[in-house]
Amino acid sequence: MTSMMYAMAVESFVPGLNSLTSLLDKGAAYARESKLDLVNARLAPDMYTLAQQVQQACNYAKDGTVRLTGRIPAERDAVGTSFAGLKAEIARTIEHLDGVTAAAFEGAEGRDCSIDRSDEGFVITMDGLRFLRAWSLPHFYFHLVTAYDILRHNGVDIGKRDYASWIGDFVRPHN
Amino acid sequence: MTSMMYAMAVESFVPGLNSLTSLLDKGAAYARESKLDLVNARLAPDMYTLAQQVQQACNYAKDGTVRLTGRIPAERDAVGTSFAGLKAEIARTIEHLDGVTAAAFEGAEGRDCSIDRSDEGFVITMDGLRFLRAWSLPHFYFHLVTAYDILRHNGVDIGKRDYASWIGDFVRPHN
Repeated sequence: MTSMMYAMAVESFVPGLNSLTSLLDKGAAYARESKLDLVNARLAPDMYTLAQQVQQACNYAKDGTVRLTGRIPAERDAVGTSFAGLKAEIARTIEHLDGVTAAAFEGAEGRDCSIDRSDEGFVITMDGLRFLRAWSLPHFYFHLVTAYDILRHNGVDIGKRDYASWIGDFVRPHN
Repeated sequence: MTSMMYAMAVESFVPGLNSLTSLLDKGAAYARESKLDLVNARLAPDMYTLAQQVQQACNYAKDGTVRLTGRIPAERDAVGTSFAGLKAEIARTIEHLDGVTAAAFEGAEGRDCSIDRSDEGFVITMDGLRFLRAWSLPHFYFHLVTAYDILRHNGVDIGKRDYASWIGDFVRPHN
């Protein structure tokens, strides 16, 4: 169970963030050519920008791992304003995740991961399994996919294989 | 472990599909008012339409559950061409998922869920845990979030709370 919680969390976040880095590389090259301000592009006027989507994906990955391993959620970092800044933020997040061992997830599924919104008068009650399934992963993928969709919508030459690039590690020649 | 595989699969898919139904309800109302052909809207000329995104979300939910419980993947259904058709397809998918018990996930994490692409000369080698983590969930969320992004981009009045509507079930008043 410990190893499964670790796998479903860290081994979802890290490959997703690695894909995001490659997507941003293609986005940066396209932005240079096209002179588009892609970092600040968004799909609707009141939606988050690409930079904010990347930041949020990093935040949910870090926050998820921190809460599941029983540590105090960190302050959220400031949003980067360049492709280089966003990539550096992703690299920091991956470094953080790489430093977390499977053993740190001991008992994670039963850990209280409720989110206290006492300023708004409520609590979102979640044990670790519910938190991972219904909070961390869906929020993480929301921002990862929307970052992809912003790039794709603006003409960057990417496909679903760039999103799910981790699948390449599992491909074997057919016998 | 069995109950965790079940939870991470079925209890991710069903709430996500319920949210998608509500998103489509708002999309349908907006399409009636605005006369936009939202069902066929897409974020890039060579991307899937809203209808196809919904279909794919249903396919990955069904296919994931079928493979993890050791059954033969079913033929994929035809794509619906109306909001009513899409909602019916989601309802059929949820009905299918509701019929699968946690007990059917016995041993799912170790089950061979490799995807044979022998026509292309390769196999994607995955046990059940890897399949769920790196295939089913990321593909499912890709299509669910892109469906959301298409609606949002076209002006439908939805927010992240409509996407993650399942969170409402976990909210308790603060004491």
